[in-house]
Parts: sequence; C-alpha cells; structure tokens
Amino acid sequence: MTSAPPGPVLVIGCGLIGTSAALALTEAGVEVHLEDIRSSNLELAVSRGAGTADPVAAPALVIVAVPPAGVVATVKRALETWPDATVTDVASVKAELQTRITDLVGSSRYVGSHPMAGSERSGPMAASSRLFEGRPWAVTTAPGTDPQATARVVAVAGIVGGVPLVMDASAHDRAVALVSHVPHVLSVLAAARLEGAPEEHLALAGPGLRDVTRIAGSDTALWQDILGSNADQVRAVLQHVREDLDRVIDSIGADADRLGRVLQSGQDGTRLIPGKHGTKVADLATVFVSVPDHPGELSRLMAHTGESAVNIEDIRIDHELGRPVGQVEIAVVAASADTLVEALTARGWSAYR
Amino acid sequence: MTSAPPGPVLVIGCGLIGTSAALALTEAGVEVHLEDIRSSNLELAVSRGAGTADPVAAPALVIVAVPPAGVVATVKRALETWPDATVTDVASVKAELQTRITDLVGSSRYVGSHPMAGSERSGPMAASSRLFEGRPWAVTTAPGTDPQATARVVAVAGIVGGVPLVMDASAHDRAVALVSHVPHVLSVLAAARLEGAPEEHLALAGPGLRDVTRIAGSDTALWQDILGSNADQVRAVLQHVREDLDRVIDSIGADADRLGRVLQSGQDGTRLIPGKHGTKVADLATVFVSVPDHPGELSRLMAHTGESAVNIEDIRIDHELGRPVGQVEIAVVAASADTLVEALTARGWSAYR
Repeated sequence: MTSAPPGPVLVIGCGLIGTSAALALTEAGVEVHLEDIRSSNLELAVSRGAGTADPVAAPALVIVAVPPAGVVATVKRALETWPDATVTDVASVKAELQTRITDLVGSSRYVGSHPMAGSERSGPMAASSRLFEGRPWAVTTAPGTDPQATARVVAVAGIVGGVPLVMDASAHDRAVALVSHVPHVLSVLAAARLEGAPEEHLALAGPGLRDVTRIAGSDTALWQDILGSNADQVRAVLQHVREDLDRVIDSIGADADRLGRVLQSGQDGTRLIPGKHGTKVADLATVFVSVPDHPGELSRLMAHTGESAVNIEDIRIDHELGRPVGQVEIAVVAASADTLVEALTARGWSAYR
Repeated sequence: MTSAPPGPVLVIGCGLIGTSAALALTEAGVEVHLEDIRSSNLELAVSRGAGTADPVAAPALVIVAVPPAGVVATVKRALETWPDATVTDVASVKAELQTRITDLVGSSRYVGSHPMAGSERSGPMAASSRLFEGRPWAVTTAPGTDPQATARVVAVAGIVGGVPLVMDASAHDRAVALVSHVPHVLSVLAAARLEGAPEEHLALAGPGLRDVTRIAGSDTALWQDILGSNADQVRAVLQHVREDLDRVIDSIGADADRLGRVLQSGQDGTRLIPGKHGTKVADLATVFVSVPDHPGELSRLMAHTGESAVNIEDIRIDHELGRPVGQVEIAVVAASADTLVEALTARGWSAYR
C-alpha cells in the first residue's frame, strides 16, 4: 500500500457510498471533486463537506458510485474524458461488468471495487466517513488490468478505512455468492415458512430463529437486483444446497448417520468463518446474565464487565415475551469466562456460563 | 396461574435442566427432592443446594429430566409409584411421547413440558436457577389430560421464571419444526457450502453470514436426535422449503418478478416474529458506532449510551479482520435514533445511523 494520498479524486454519484468515500478521503487530506446528475444530492454532499462541485482537469482516480444500470456508460465516459485516470466503480457484482468494460478504450485503467459496507438508509445524508472502517473492500481485476491502477485503488480503499482484498472479478462473484447471496436466500426460505403460522407457534421463537432470518428482512427490490446480477454463480451454489436439502429430507427419521454427516459438514463450515483476531468461535464461551429491562441497567452491566478487565468478544441481548428482564449473552475467550462470572456475581448480577 | 407453591416436587435426573429447575424451585420455597441413577450427579446437585436426596412419600409433581431414551419408562414408573402425582418431562419433541404415554395407567396425570432454554454446557455444575428466566416454556396436552395437572405444570413453569404456553402436543411439534428445527437445517445448509472455499473468499464474510450460520455450530449429535425425533413435521416443512428453493433456482436471472415474490414472502415472515414488548423489527433503527478494540471502550460506550436515556433494544458487535476497531450496532426504537447519535457524537464517538 502506498502512503502518499493520491492526486485529485473525482466521485461521480453522491449517494450513500459515494458521499461516504468522499467524506473519508476529504478527512484524510485528499482533494475531492463531486459530480451527480441530481443537483440536490450534489448540493447536500458539498454542504456536508464531502468535496467541491468545481470541475476537475485531471483526476488521478474516478470513483463511479452511480446506480448499477448506469455504471458501464459512466465508466466509459470517465476512461475517455481523463486518459490518465484510474477508474473504479462500487457495484456489488463484478464479472459481467468487467467483461463489458474490457472492450472499452483504456480498459486497463479500470479496476472494480466492492466495499462490503452499507446502511439501512441511503443518500448523502446517511453517509459517514466511517462507513468503511474495518470492512472488507474487494478490489477486482482482470488479466489486462494495469497493476499501477490496482495499487491506486488498493491505496484508496485503505485510506477510507477499508481492508482491501485484491481478487479476480469472477472469483469475487463466486465468493459473494457463497458468503452473502446464498446465505441470504436461505434466510429468506426460513422466514417465508412463518407466513400463516398461528401466533402461539411463533411465541416459541428463540434467538436462533431471529439470527437465521434477520437478513431476510432487508430491502427486497435491492436483493432482487443483486441476486439477478449474479444469477449464474448463485444458481450453481443453490444446486449444491438442493442436493444437501434432498439428503436431509431423505435421511431424516430414516438414516441418522447420513443426516449426521450433513450436520457435521455444517458445523465444520462455521469453523471456517473468520472471527476476531483469528479467534475461532470454538474458543469462545458464553456468559449469561439476567438484566432488568429498563434504561441504565445494561450500561451498569457493561461498566461492571469493564471493571473485570475481561475483554468482550461479542454481546447478544434477548428480550422475551414482554417479561421485565432480558437475557444478555457475553462471549469471551473461554479461559476468561469463569473470571467474568465471578466478577459479575460479586457485583450482584445473576451470571452463569 | 396459581399463587401457592405446589407441594413437594421430585426431580428425576440432575442434569442441566433438572438441576436448574430444582434450584429455582428451592429458591422459591418449594420442597424439592432429587433422584439420579448417577450418584455423582445427585451429590453435586445436592451440594449446590438444589434439594434433598431423601425419598419422598407423596410428591405433588414429578419432573422427569432424564435423557430422551429413558423418558417413557421413567414417566411410567412415576405414574405407578405416586398415584396422586402430576408427572411432566422436559423432552424437546412431544407428540410421539404423548402417544406412547396415553396408553399407560394414570396417563391423564401426565403433562408434557418443553422449556425453551439451554446452555452450551451440560450437567449439574452448569445449572442455574435463572436458566428459564423469561424463556418460553411449552406445556403440552392431549384430549385426555386432566386440567388440574395442566394447571400444576403451568404454575411450576411460572415459578421457575418461564413463560408458560399451553398447547396440544402435535401443535407443539409443528411449531418447533417451524421456528427451530427447519431454521437449524437451513443454517446448516448455508454453512456446509463453505467447506473447500478459498480463504480469500471467506475473508469477504460479513455479519449476515455469521448470523445465518451461528446455530449450525451447535452439537451435531444432539441435533441428529432432535431432528430424528420430529422427522415427520420437519420433513413436511422442508418439502415446502424445497418448493421455494426450486422457485428461486428457476427464476433467478430469468424471472425477476417471481424471484421478488419469494423474497417478499421472506420479508413478510420476519415481521411475524415476536420482538421485545411486541415491537416489530421494522420499528427499530440501527445506530453504528466505531469502537477501539481494547478493554473498557465498550463499557465507556455503554455508559454514555445510558446517559442518553435512550433504551437499547439490541446490540451487535463486529470485529473485522484484525483491525484495531470494532463496529457496534445499537438497535433502538426508530424515533430515538437521532437522539442517540447526537448524544454519542457530543461525547466524542463516531456514530451514525
């Protein structure tokens, strides 16, 4: 990664992602110019200090952050207008885009980006210079990509706080099918079954159901686009899911060993997911604490946890069925769990592991 | 629910669930007797103050908390030995059990229980009198069940802190297939696909993947048993899942409207899941805060959040890829989100919604 900030950056499209990148670059001392065909977005982004609306003569980098349908045309215009500029975009699916751009003049100066960050909201008012902080930022390339262009995009991803990961555009699409798009479909399939269920059945729902179905609550139009634009990769993985599902349907109640093998492959899969500092989920233990459900109690618990000097790896809170108490689950490194239980118990909490 | 504590309670099986129930009943002033064929378990439970190992002449209630394979024989012995006792068990699947017990002498005095609580650990040392606090406790019946026996089990479920939900044994099994067993299978199917994926692909994993796959990391032998014992109900729901999956496979990249309808039914399903105090997920907003990843910072954030007087509905923490900062997501009622952002920003945090 280079250390010097790149020359002027032009951000085209002042939505959530474009404005957030512009804010972060401006904070880092980079000269940022802004463009948006919606003048209201442009004015808002400028008013938030994201950059200037003045035209730029020779940007070092152009970040195309327009809606998916406009990406290719905007990248084309940027490559033609600024013959020395590196051009990137922020669309969430890359291979087809890369193929269409490869035929353009200057395509070696194009590098794809997919910052793995977002918000429930959109537009320049929802933007934040911290949006990319600690998030993976995929930087996607093709065989003809100029390595200097790649280095420039990697540098910018790092400057805005992201964790740049360089990969081939097709590899990226296979990866997001696996870690994002297919899990989304499975979350949807679990949630879809709840329609028409009696309320008393749903009253038995626990934290597991809420975890599995959480992302199914996301914007359906957005996901219709995302899945559609990565259809081949997602379909390929879903075919394998279907084979596993058939294995479960066939073996359940009939062949416990075969069912067990599918369950085991799932458990093995969870151990491959990177956690904090490389800590595998299996090294963590959960401490359960009952917390009265009114303002301040959770803060008190957190302060006491801090006094124990045990670092918190994760926290989950369950509020159940209108009872005046919540269950807080604090994940810590397994070796520290008893220390935390003792510290909290000594301070009057009902804690156990 | 009755208010007087029931007469003597006999707990057979001093594992996690039995000992936890015994501890909670003893704390509530109920006379508790304990039995376990493993004398070490019995001694540990007694030493923890869960009750006495002295025999009981006439228990009002017998809680059978032995492993699944021993439930019917133990319930049979209890019904025969104590002709005035109500007998319950704590197995997680109920209909088949109910059918087998219905033929026994005294079966009208049997009522099923399924406390929706657990821990990663097992045995009497992992037990806690607060294990059931705020958790649903299904109380399952058949047409021949004595209503007084049902009332007694409902009372005990409430005394130990659970939220009793009375339902037919078959309805219970359909319900847990829907809200627990099938979501578990879908979590496993998402996680199973990760095997063999290159590390750089997995590096793109975000919080969505971790949510969907979390429960797939659970004990596979336990889930082999649970799924096998509710095979018919789970298979029936999975057949519908398969139809939806085929709809997705067929429509992705080909029929966006059809794909959109499946996504919509998933989103609709998430809105049916009961949240805190009946708050639907849709009424909540998320505030994002960047937190340096060392002990005490999270406590400081929680204390400041408490000062804002905004009540926390949920907290999530993301630690990404070894960066020295974590992203904390605080869910609050949507109308309070801006108040919280302002309060945290004023105290020096990088917060946005």
